[in-house]
Amino acid sequence: MKKYQRLVQQIIDQIALGVWHPGDRLPSLREQVASSGMSLMTVSHAYQMLESQGVIVARPQSGYYVAPQPQARVPQPPEQIRRDEQVDINTYIFDVLQASTDASVVPFGSAFPDPRLFPLAQLNRSLANVSKYANAMSVIENLPPGNEALRHAIARRYAQQGVNVSPEEIVITAGALEALNLSLQAVTEPGDWVIVENPCFYGALQALERLRLKALSVATDAEEGIDLDALAQALNDYPVKACWLMTNAQNPLGFTLSPEKKQKLVALLSQHNVALIEDDVYSELYYGRDKPLPARAWDEQGITLHCSSFSKCLVAGFRIGWVAAGRHARRIQQLQLMSTLSTSSPMQMALVDYLATRRYDAHLRRLRRQLAERKQQAWQALRRHLPAEVRIHRSESGYFLWIELPPGLDAGELGEQALRHQISIAPGRMFSTSDTWHNFFRFNTSWAWGEREEQAAIRLAELIRQAISARTPLSA
Amino acid sequence: MKKYQRLVQQIIDQIALGVWHPGDRLPSLREQVASSGMSLMTVSHAYQMLESQGVIVARPQSGYYVAPQPQARVPQPPEQIRRDEQVDINTYIFDVLQASTDASVVPFGSAFPDPRLFPLAQLNRSLANVSKYANAMSVIENLPPGNEALRHAIARRYAQQGVNVSPEEIVITAGALEALNLSLQAVTEPGDWVIVENPCFYGALQALERLRLKALSVATDAEEGIDLDALAQALNDYPVKACWLMTNAQNPLGFTLSPEKKQKLVALLSQHNVALIEDDVYSELYYGRDKPLPARAWDEQGITLHCSSFSKCLVAGFRIGWVAAGRHARRIQQLQLMSTLSTSSPMQMALVDYLATRRYDAHLRRLRRQLAERKQQAWQALRRHLPAEVRIHRSESGYFLWIELPPGLDAGELGEQALRHQISIAPGRMFSTSDTWHNFFRFNTSWAWGEREEQAAIRLAELIRQAISARTPLSA
Repeated sequence: MKKYQRLVQQIIDQIALGVWHPGDRLPSLREQVASSGMSLMTVSHAYQMLESQGVIVARPQSGYYVAPQPQARVPQPPEQIRRDEQVDINTYIFDVLQASTDASVVPFGSAFPDPRLFPLAQLNRSLANVSKYANAMSVIENLPPGNEALRHAIARRYAQQGVNVSPEEIVITAGALEALNLSLQAVTEPGDWVIVENPCFYGALQALERLRLKALSVATDAEEGIDLDALAQALNDYPVKACWLMTNAQNPLGFTLSPEKKQKLVALLSQHNVALIEDDVYSELYYGRDKPLPARAWDEQGITLHCSSFSKCLVAGFRIGWVAAGRHARRIQQLQLMSTLSTSSPMQMALVDYLATRRYDAHLRRLRRQLAERKQQAWQALRRHLPAEVRIHRSESGYFLWIELPPGLDAGELGEQALRHQISIAPGRMFSTSDTWHNFFRFNTSWAWGEREEQAAIRLAELIRQAISARTPLSA
Repeated sequence: MKKYQRLVQQIIDQIALGVWHPGDRLPSLREQVASSGMSLMTVSHAYQMLESQGVIVARPQSGYYVAPQPQARVPQPPEQIRRDEQVDINTYIFDVLQASTDASVVPFGSAFPDPRLFPLAQLNRSLANVSKYANAMSVIENLPPGNEALRHAIARRYAQQGVNVSPEEIVITAGALEALNLSLQAVTEPGDWVIVENPCFYGALQALERLRLKALSVATDAEEGIDLDALAQALNDYPVKACWLMTNAQNPLGFTLSPEKKQKLVALLSQHNVALIEDDVYSELYYGRDKPLPARAWDEQGITLHCSSFSKCLVAGFRIGWVAAGRHARRIQQLQLMSTLSTSSPMQMALVDYLATRRYDAHLRRLRRQLAERKQQAWQALRRHLPAEVRIHRSESGYFLWIELPPGLDAGELGEQALRHQISIAPGRMFSTSDTWHNFFRFNTSWAWGEREEQAAIRLAELIRQAISARTPLSA
């Protein structure tokens, strides 16, 4: 347990013991530094965690207070397993996504990281290089399963983590989204049951809808991830064919599953012989020292189809992703040849060229630092402006915050109002077929925090305050 | 009717009248020139047509003879409408396609035109240009429906033909294959009936299999195209949702539907309110003077989803196609956002850059001339080497010949034997769920005819002769 975590636990224990009551003012940061002997950074980090967990609230120019009604952690969905015979979510998601392509909108709802964080000049140089040596036959060399050098480069990155993936089982795809969709199709038939997280990446719900699959949405905690007991229950009760989930920097919640939990997850699915479609697109966006392993690392039976891409960490526009598909590699190539035929040949070659420069790891280090800084900045600004009743769930990876409005408020309505002010957010209902998350929204922190963002945050705070006041008379 | 067509009809009439009997030697080319007053080219063209129709046979160093058993035109499938509740063809097609990616194989079975016919230097220059002005925001500008300048450029090419297509209804896709697949999915639900040609582009059968659709394969003639009476019957008898067919340079047969037939087709489908998924990927590869119109040109009710691409006429590796989807454009964008998200951004921009050079039309003129020459060369070589019983169906567009082995021979077996000699062909069973075309294969004529091709053709002829002798004792 790290120092700040000890302090977090200590204060939680003190509140439980009645040392501090709801509404009490806690020691200030400086007082706490003096009394604990910890650094300002450690104490500040601990207070942030407590705040993001809803244990304490910050009041600007005043200090930190024990939350008025100490809440439990993120409320669990009313049902641990939600069952949908038919998924029908797509039109809503489409409308929200369309809004985020408008350049005049402040894209807090966007799924993309700020592309200005990517090494454009070097990528363009690689593109220019490809234009020098692409020849008439390149198209054949880049057909499924994809460019051989690229598949080798990807296999070597797995090897760096000690994960053995053969270049032969890798299929290059149009981003992770195609990899995930082909993987799901490879292991299911229409009408099959598939397990997803609740909440989950909306792309999973869209894929289920598109492929006419039935959904079992399993309760997923903002810090601990999927409820393994509920998962086991679902596996026992239904003839499940696949489980699609994110193990690292989950979208939208942000958690990274612990190694123990990844191991248990794989063991459980192996036991039921259920395919694990592991969506690992944020694997490079950890803030800690070491890159977290994929669940695939614990897979001894070959149940995992591990999907990732370069879109979130290097370049989105190239549309290059992959799946390490194990024994399903051939079937996935077949499905690809049937639907998009192949991934663009110059794009694959440009990536090979870029990776050969050996600048990728330096770029990733810089990117991670920038994303961490920007998340901290956005978090501070939001904490400053948003009403104290709004809880901000924060994770140490990726570029999302998961923001919880007071119960009864609707993030979907807030989103519609915000859009009239040229601000987008990603409402919780995009990420679930249940209404559990209607007062949540996902907030993209990857943008440089400038005057435009500051003003947008202030406007968002105003809208939330208005919604709270509009609600109060009714509930009073 | 053109001059050579008059001569063709004249000789057919003479044979019907008994002027010439089966086995009779016809006037030589020179004699015919002298007697008819037509040019050598016209007479030669007429004789080629008669030969490709199986009316006459050429015997090297001897002359032209009336076919021993004057055959009807391409035999119709035993059933005019074939019905498949479930399409299951993919594994076979996949195996054949895999073979054609091996560079050591002579690719007579390939679906691609020779990429050396494409303007590589200019495309690479466009790629290099894009590397100079691609910026961080390009990825957003190229999201579905796709790059605006590209959609405008495509709309202007429709306009040149007098076909009104709005840039707003165009969606840029990963080649025509994605356009066709998304179109089919946009207008159907699993279990729906869809009409395809028999034989048809295997991608249509794969799409039906992938989307769990039921197939009605309607008899299609090598020169006249789909049997409209059978089509009308199918529309009357089944609740058909869509009809996927090729109107220009059909794959594998090669015919281009006449304007009258296109008009009737559209009228018939409109009357039943059935979507027309028009696969028009070879539209630029006509040999005649004018580019043939798509069926879409006669569509007044908006039933057509017109799909095409740059892959067969400019560059295959970029993977850029489109659909002019009319009122289905929004649904297709949704389906694209769900499955591949978007087409590669630099690839779209490179095409915009290339099209702005205004060299495209000059390239297409050169390409058409080269393809016509190469088809003529391949045809001559095959005619020289293949046994007289083998009929070669030839069309004046694209780069395929449709080759008919004597009844009882199996082109699939021939394909397997040929592959052992590093030669690929595309057997007829790839193009149909019925066994009607088992003695046919598709032959790609786009390759420069050199020693390698000549030797491969000789080897193919040997294998066919062996198959004929192996068969004879059994049937005797």
